[in-house]
Amino acid sequence: MKIPAIHPDTHQKISWDIFILILTIAITIIIPLIMVYQLPLNGLLLIFDFCISMIFIADILIESHTAYFEQRELIRHKESIFKNYLKKAFPIDLLAAFPFFMILSLFPSPLMLQIAFLSNILRLAKLLRIGRTIGRIRNSKRLNPSFIRMSLLIFWILIAAHLISCAWMSIWENPGALNPLNAESMYLRSFYWTVTTLTTIGYGDISPSTNLETIFVIIIELIGAGMYGFIIGNIANIIANIDIAKSQYQEKMEKVTTFLRYKNIPHDLKNKIGDYYDYLWDSRRGYDESSILQDLPKPLKTSVSLFLNRGIIQKVPIFQGANEEFIKEIILNLQPVIFTPGDSVVIKGEIGYEMYFISRGSVDVVSEDESVVYATLGSGSFFGEIALLLSAPRNATIKAKDYCDCYSLDKDTFDQILVRFPEFAVKIREMAEKRRAETEEKQKKNK
Amino acid sequence: MKIPAIHPDTHQKISWDIFILILTIAITIIIPLIMVYQLPLNGLLLIFDFCISMIFIADILIESHTAYFEQRELIRHKESIFKNYLKKAFPIDLLAAFPFFMILSLFPSPLMLQIAFLSNILRLAKLLRIGRTIGRIRNSKRLNPSFIRMSLLIFWILIAAHLISCAWMSIWENPGALNPLNAESMYLRSFYWTVTTLTTIGYGDISPSTNLETIFVIIIELIGAGMYGFIIGNIANIIANIDIAKSQYQEKMEKVTTFLRYKNIPHDLKNKIGDYYDYLWDSRRGYDESSILQDLPKPLKTSVSLFLNRGIIQKVPIFQGANEEFIKEIILNLQPVIFTPGDSVVIKGEIGYEMYFISRGSVDVVSEDESVVYATLGSGSFFGEIALLLSAPRNATIKAKDYCDCYSLDKDTFDQILVRFPEFAVKIREMAEKRRAETEEKQKKNK
Amino acid sequence: MKIPAIHPDTHQKISWDIFILILTIAITIIIPLIMVYQLPLNGLLLIFDFCISMIFIADILIESHTAYFEQRELIRHKESIFKNYLKKAFPIDLLAAFPFFMILSLFPSPLMLQIAFLSNILRLAKLLRIGRTIGRIRNSKRLNPSFIRMSLLIFWILIAAHLISCAWMSIWENPGALNPLNAESMYLRSFYWTVTTLTTIGYGDISPSTNLETIFVIIIELIGAGMYGFIIGNIANIIANIDIAKSQYQEKMEKVTTFLRYKNIPHDLKNKIGDYYDYLWDSRRGYDESSILQDLPKPLKTSVSLFLNRGIIQKVPIFQGANEEFIKEIILNLQPVIFTPGDSVVIKGEIGYEMYFISRGSVDVVSEDESVVYATLGSGSFFGEIALLLSAPRNATIKAKDYCDCYSLDKDTFDQILVRFPEFAVKIREMAEKRRAETEEKQKKNK
Amino acid sequence: MKIPAIHPDTHQKISWDIFILILTIAITIIIPLIMVYQLPLNGLLLIFDFCISMIFIADILIESHTAYFEQRELIRHKESIFKNYLKKAFPIDLLAAFPFFMILSLFPSPLMLQIAFLSNILRLAKLLRIGRTIGRIRNSKRLNPSFIRMSLLIFWILIAAHLISCAWMSIWENPGALNPLNAESMYLRSFYWTVTTLTTIGYGDISPSTNLETIFVIIIELIGAGMYGFIIGNIANIIANIDIAKSQYQEKMEKVTTFLRYKNIPHDLKNKIGDYYDYLWDSRRGYDESSILQDLPKPLKTSVSLFLNRGIIQKVPIFQGANEEFIKEIILNLQPVIFTPGDSVVIKGEIGYEMYFISRGSVDVVSEDESVVYATLGSGSFFGEIALLLSAPRNATIKAKDYCDCYSLDKDTFDQILVRFPEFAVKIREMAEKRRAETEEKQKKNK
Repeated sequence: MKIPAIHPDTHQKISWDIFILILTIAITIIIPLIMVYQLPLNGLLLIFDFCISMIFIADILIESHTAYFEQRELIRHKESIFKNYLKKAFPIDLLAAFPFFMILSLFPSPLMLQIAFLSNILRLAKLLRIGRTIGRIRNSKRLNPSFIRMSLLIFWILIAAHLISCAWMSIWENPGALNPLNAESMYLRSFYWTVTTLTTIGYGDISPSTNLETIFVIIIELIGAGMYGFIIGNIANIIANIDIAKSQYQEKMEKVTTFLRYKNIPHDLKNKIGDYYDYLWDSRRGYDESSILQDLPKPLKTSVSLFLNRGIIQKVPIFQGANEEFIKEIILNLQPVIFTPGDSVVIKGEIGYEMYFISRGSVDVVSEDESVVYATLGSGSFFGEIALLLSAPRNATIKAKDYCDCYSLDKDTFDQILVRFPEFAVKIREMAEKRRAETEEKQKKNK
Repeated sequence: MKIPAIHPDTHQKISWDIFILILTIAITIIIPLIMVYQLPLNGLLLIFDFCISMIFIADILIESHTAYFEQRELIRHKESIFKNYLKKAFPIDLLAAFPFFMILSLFPSPLMLQIAFLSNILRLAKLLRIGRTIGRIRNSKRLNPSFIRMSLLIFWILIAAHLISCAWMSIWENPGALNPLNAESMYLRSFYWTVTTLTTIGYGDISPSTNLETIFVIIIELIGAGMYGFIIGNIANIIANIDIAKSQYQEKMEKVTTFLRYKNIPHDLKNKIGDYYDYLWDSRRGYDESSILQDLPKPLKTSVSLFLNRGIIQKVPIFQGANEEFIKEIILNLQPVIFTPGDSVVIKGEIGYEMYFISRGSVDVVSEDESVVYATLGSGSFFGEIALLLSAPRNATIKAKDYCDCYSLDKDTFDQILVRFPEFAVKIREMAEKRRAETEEKQKKNK
Repeated sequence: MKIPAIHPDTHQKISWDIFILILTIAITIIIPLIMVYQLPLNGLLLIFDFCISMIFIADILIESHTAYFEQRELIRHKESIFKNYLKKAFPIDLLAAFPFFMILSLFPSPLMLQIAFLSNILRLAKLLRIGRTIGRIRNSKRLNPSFIRMSLLIFWILIAAHLISCAWMSIWENPGALNPLNAESMYLRSFYWTVTTLTTIGYGDISPSTNLETIFVIIIELIGAGMYGFIIGNIANIIANIDIAKSQYQEKMEKVTTFLRYKNIPHDLKNKIGDYYDYLWDSRRGYDESSILQDLPKPLKTSVSLFLNRGIIQKVPIFQGANEEFIKEIILNLQPVIFTPGDSVVIKGEIGYEMYFISRGSVDVVSEDESVVYATLGSGSFFGEIALLLSAPRNATIKAKDYCDCYSLDKDTFDQILVRFPEFAVKIREMAEKRRAETEEKQKKNK
Repeated sequence: MKIPAIHPDTHQKISWDIFILILTIAITIIIPLIMVYQLPLNGLLLIFDFCISMIFIADILIESHTAYFEQRELIRHKESIFKNYLKKAFPIDLLAAFPFFMILSLFPSPLMLQIAFLSNILRLAKLLRIGRTIGRIRNSKRLNPSFIRMSLLIFWILIAAHLISCAWMSIWENPGALNPLNAESMYLRSFYWTVTTLTTIGYGDISPSTNLETIFVIIIELIGAGMYGFIIGNIANIIANIDIAKSQYQEKMEKVTTFLRYKNIPHDLKNKIGDYYDYLWDSRRGYDESSILQDLPKPLKTSVSLFLNRGIIQKVPIFQGANEEFIKEIILNLQPVIFTPGDSVVIKGEIGYEMYFISRGSVDVVSEDESVVYATLGSGSFFGEIALLLSAPRNATIKAKDYCDCYSLDKDTFDQILVRFPEFAVKIREMAEKRRAETEEKQKKNK
């Protein structure tokens, strides 16, 4: 019978991983306490020890049949899995699972049992495998990486503090000659001392007296100082990373502000520019649409652009009858532009070279003196399409009503695309000819 | 009767917000103290409690009628306001405003009153809303963000220290067996202990003795270490951000310095380049005008450029009679250039392709051997405009007198713009023809 | 006899350097202890002192004959070596090697011997030369720079702590009036106090009482605080540098995410883009191949490109018979492109302008409705080569099966290269002509 | 009589500034000590006080006649100087110089004298002006900014510690009931306590007992924690800035390394690329010559380029007879290129389009099979100049001997420049014609 390799991302496997994770944490807490309090080696403890061995052996069997990822490719080949497991995780897992007790109890003597029991501390090696499990869970990506990093930091510090406390308890002589402490108090006082030292607070109500204690304290102090430095460094790094986008943006704004001040730009123009940058940050963290799309490979870029603009493009009369490919080319060549409230997008009488598509916001079509609003165009509208056909003067002034995200398409780009679609180009030229004729007629009439 | 939604930025609303803010801080200070000192539940306290409930209920009513911003758009629609308030702030506000006392006092018993009173601690939930108020005030943007950030940090630390002190007081047994402390001293000693611990100083003159105290101290130490790390991280981040522009600039200068040293550039040239970079930093934080303008949307860019250069452009004789649109195009295509003192902007006899506009600083028109200064042109002057018409040799040498911010316009750009203005192009060509004829005549005469 | 300069990178020289390094550390530990414990000046000590002098004098001789690097150039000229050594390292080496004892013992008196002995402390000057040795070892570059930096930091702190401990021992009056300490305990307590102070823990069980002690403690506290700040700053810096690539990438991804959210991109497209960025990071730390190659000087760029693509290029039928130089030009102009699983690389009926080479991954040649897979092309395959000859519609749809690293070559680039190879261009044109004829015939048949 | 404004950078003025600086520091140290030790108000002290007043009044007079800089421009106009001084520095200077004693001693009474004396503390306001003096000294730019920043930090901390110590002394009750301290010890113990607290060590051997002391300690602890955080933040920032160029470079190298590994580039090519990047860093901190020159304004760029290349250009035979302007254009258009040892710069038989100038390093002219070295060209040599005239195949293979900094000039750029110099172009064309004829003749002979 051939059992297939276990997929590492199935629900069952992850549940097992979490079970092992919790068990590992539990024994990390319990085993040192048992050893420090020197509990008698009665049956309960031996059974407890035996169970853990069994579960860890089961874990070895499961792990050695679990497929693994290499550069995002799942390796399911049995032999590769074995080799990979043997090389990486097996020694640690074996150490943690090794039933010292069973082997040593074949030679029963108080000393042997003692050794068997002490060897339990080796089970803590399993802690080294925690990273793997957490890595797998993290990959599900629903969690903030800074949050995970801080949580892990706290977790490891607490584990370290617990282990240090137990070690301190075992060497701490006469922990209060006047009022002997009971068991819990002693652990509590030890833990209290550890935390006080690791956080560099150092009350000094508990301090070493024997040489052994002194050496131990020196080591813990050095570790503690390093650890505390590491925590502060991590926090500083997390804070810096949270702020990285914001602080770069602020730096940019500061430069602009300095420039405006240096050039004595009038106050209202300064405010308008300030508001524009605020809008950019509030609405999109200051990103630049073009550069983001530029980064994507072409098919993804096309998908995004098509999603954003296909609807609006198909409404444009002059694009009626163009084939799919042509529309795609047009969409890929749209340029995002932003207008701030009150900006003149198009001025009557000026010769235009671009047409515009409104993606967000609205614009007013106004009279030349801006006193009458003829119409308001909202998102999904477009204007200026005649500019693509012929270089005629704009026939209306258009002003942005609020912040507008538009896309523009200029005549040069349009003409370049047309070159590749000779059939459609003919159609466009006819349309342009017709439009020119109409315009000339109109002008004659006006005369 | 239908009352309209309250605008969140009116003077009255902000005043109310600040009032609630101060009240919240006040009760945060007072309530824990009352509880720790176990003041008798007399009428005064009950009235105090009742008043706060009433004010917080009023706040709920006001808040639930206040319009709010969503992506810089003010939402005034009643139903949306309600939904938004219910979802976000209502639970907290309710908890803070809930008149536990009134409800529980319907069943009068010492225990019930006690519970009613203890429930007062829930009012501190209101603290969570402080951020909102400060956010609103901050938006008025008159304040330095680093300063606000530090102030908030200090504020929250003091609040935390106060709450920790009160908690410590309530569990601190026998705080000085020899000399019993009076009420103020006790709070003071508590606060002293809290600060000593949070700052990781840990004198050790006050240290835990009972198990409860030990557990409390462990928790506070861990919080304190994290908090202290957070403060240091924040300070480091603020310092780094203050310096970000400067340090990037220094890095750039260091690169230049290394280059100059590597290439054995002579000392005076090295100094000149160093001075140039100093000038760039002192006058404009090293910004690059072109790249700043590039970032702005076209209408804003046009406004800024027009403001900076319209005056000077209109003075140029060859632009007389050009229409508004042409001038705009010219202005948008000016290139900022900087000259350092002593630089030759134009050398007599060389063929020129640019004209220059002086924005700041002044230049000398000098003889070929630079011994005679014919004239000095200040800001608002221009020169070299013939280069736009024909490729004739420069007829004078011009040297920068001090640091000059100029704008240049080269013939290629000028010709490109002309293409779009065929009528004006004809005029320019005539002018060029005339000028050429004149020059040739002059040359003949010289011969 | 003329001995040649010693090469600094030979095995023997490095071994000697390491020996001197270890000896320096040893005397740094031993000499202060001898002085603090005021060991009697017996013969053993004098011999010890004499040996060290001899070894250090030998070191001076060796160093003054060792060639050195200046801007990656080995200077072997004897005189230059001498001058360089005299100017830089000689004074320190002399101080460390000076046999004070021998000179002073010519005037034997207890005082003189005492002075000779105290002067031993000057040997510690040799510590200053440690950096040199470590620098040389580091240059072998097999070690992680952050790791070296941390190790050195710890090393210098331990050295400093040892020296401070010895100094404290020598001024520490009555270090425990009740239970007089033995020699080791005294050093241990001193070291314990030093570490407790430097890590800012400050238990306070050992604190200064005399004025001298107080002054000493003040100095150590100031040094300690600076040192601790330096450690934290270093750790923070190391953490920040480890993460620099990752955090920049995350920032970029965050921008993209914000953009996608702002534009309401549908969920599956969002996931696809997210996966693409994950793939980019996992497979290549988000690097951009073009920009990396752009940085290299042309010959190196050519070598890398040739290595990557020569095999595949030579397989293309239309490149048969092209000369080496032509192939090189083609390879240098390939553009890397990435396709995500499911992307349509080429769509049947669209007019193509690029050919593709598959470097990693595989693509499916599918029917127009994508229901039938005609073939699968793996890495080392190419397709679309006809596009380089004539602008015919694609004759098959090709979809990426998984993440594909491809290279593309477009017709414009190809034509530009052909210009330089007129002979081969003729051949290509013939091939194109032939192909066109074939296609037309086929089309006739189909009709 | 009209005295001219004092120049702020003269030797005398700076000396006076330093004198005032030292005096300010001296009184900052002395005045608090006098007050804390409550020295009797005898004549000596009154004279001391009077002298300082006089000197500070003199300083006011001098400062109010010293020209100042505004945006790198020296303002010498008397009225502007006065206004600027009155607005900025005068209030502080007045406070520091005000002879309280003289005014108050007009109404002699013990109380008045006491007040007059206490008012001395106001002199410390002068400390605020220290920044100005240091700023001026710093501007002389000979000092490392990080070093100045650290020194100032230490200076301010010591001043703060001194002031805190004095304040603590004045409120510290019963500083050692058992062994009363003498005057110096008391200050020493105070200073010791201050440093212990500010560095967050907190031995706890001195701790507050009265309420006043407790409040004082709380304040100092909060200040100390902030200050310590500020120091650490500064150190972290300084370390980060030292490393900024290096860490960016390392990040870049890491990207390249990842790329090379991903693409399985062979080991020796990988090493070659690694060495190239090392060379780039060692020789020029990884800078890119083109981008550095691009940053400079054109006249500076020209000066640097001329300095670097004029000598070599004038040696090229085909440039003989070109005018100054032409040479300048050529030099401005040279492209820096780097060759690594063993690179083939030019391969015999390939058609060349560039000529090369060697700036540093040397190249070998070798036979086609690279077995024979015909010649070695060092810095200041050039080769391949025929490529500028006609597209003939290279007539030798040239290989880089070591790292070579070269400049290249390609035919396209050369032709573009020629367009602007029609007379010289004619000459060049003749030369090309002649050369072609010669080549053809040679080829005939070879046949």
